[in-house]
Amino acid sequence: MEIILASQSPRRRELLERMGIRNFRVVSADIDEREEEQLPPEQLVCRLALRKAEAVAEKAPKGAVIIAADTVVSLDGTVLGKPGDKLEAFKMLSTLSGNRHQVYTGLCVIWDGDKRTEYEVTDVTFRELGEKEIEDYIATGEPMDKAGAYGIQGYGALLVERIEGDYYNVMGLPVCRLGTVLLELGVDCLALAAGRERE
Amino acid sequence: MEIILASQSPRRRELLERMGIRNFRVVSADIDEREEEQLPPEQLVCRLALRKAEAVAEKAPKGAVIIAADTVVSLDGTVLGKPGDKLEAFKMLSTLSGNRHQVYTGLCVIWDGDKRTEYEVTDVTFRELGEKEIEDYIATGEPMDKAGAYGIQGYGALLVERIEGDYYNVMGLPVCRLGTVLLELGVDCLALAAGRERE
Repeated sequence: MEIILASQSPRRRELLERMGIRNFRVVSADIDEREEEQLPPEQLVCRLALRKAEAVAEKAPKGAVIIAADTVVSLDGTVLGKPGDKLEAFKMLSTLSGNRHQVYTGLCVIWDGDKRTEYEVTDVTFRELGEKEIEDYIATGEPMDKAGAYGIQGYGALLVERIEGDYYNVMGLPVCRLGTVLLELGVDCLALAAGRERE
Repeated sequence: MEIILASQSPRRRELLERMGIRNFRVVSADIDEREEEQLPPEQLVCRLALRKAEAVAEKAPKGAVIIAADTVVSLDGTVLGKPGDKLEAFKMLSTLSGNRHQVYTGLCVIWDGDKRTEYEVTDVTFRELGEKEIEDYIATGEPMDKAGAYGIQGYGALLVERIEGDYYNVMGLPVCRLGTVLLELGVDCLALAAGRERE
């Protein structure tokens, strides 16, 4: 069974590998994300994940499993995307400091005409950050390509006091939920991993 | 300033590196853990972290910063250690299935005669697991060297539905808390990381 990840994100690729999936192709889904901007976050991520999956499914061979995801950070109802420059990163991190926000990841799996679209939300609480800490964090270069201007798996771990929900959802892929969806489609990640180990 | 990690755990080493600490030594702390077994988990992990740190501090050069940690898994007041064999791993994972348990990590930092001992607790909720899933997970080889018979950073990610608290605490080191303790001692992880990037 061919598996296609409809995402260029190196973090999603790494997580799919960590789930025990070894043979998959990465196909970029080029969609215009702007038209959905006014939707609430849980609808936005589902809609974008669905559109990414559909765009890739159109050109995919029959029987392939397509996996797509989209992640946004939401603070008090405002969606934070990737920062455009260092000043924007500074403003985003200043608003996240000492506060709790939400990370939404929409997930869409298409297989043999069957479509499953779901989302997962994780609460993330930042500790209080000083101005110099925010400037140092931006200087590490980590914030610029990430929604909300931080990466929980990097130096961002030093900023996050606690989370409530799936950690991997914050990284961009709800691993536990995706595992159960794949299991329903007949892709058993644990059995695959065990099989490789037994060989 | 010399930094010594009083732990052989490859996961703690990886996390210290991820915090931006590059130059540190690993020194094994050989202590007999059995005499503390009757303590409640939050006292147990603090006591063991303190004893590990003290054992290493005795032989360390003056002015060195010693970091030690100890992690246990607790379900309904029962402490789960590392499984002795596959059957024990099966029993542990069966009791964790569909339930919420606690992961306690005690942290001790010794510097110039000053001792800081703290602990962090994270709630972890497993999804319902079938017998075959548990057998497959054990067959991956992942459970055997880990408290509670799972690793959240590996295939164990497929078992964990949600957590409440610090994710890295479940891996064995409360990164955010350690970062603030080190900051108080004058070791600024973010400034170190930023400095390397600016070079």
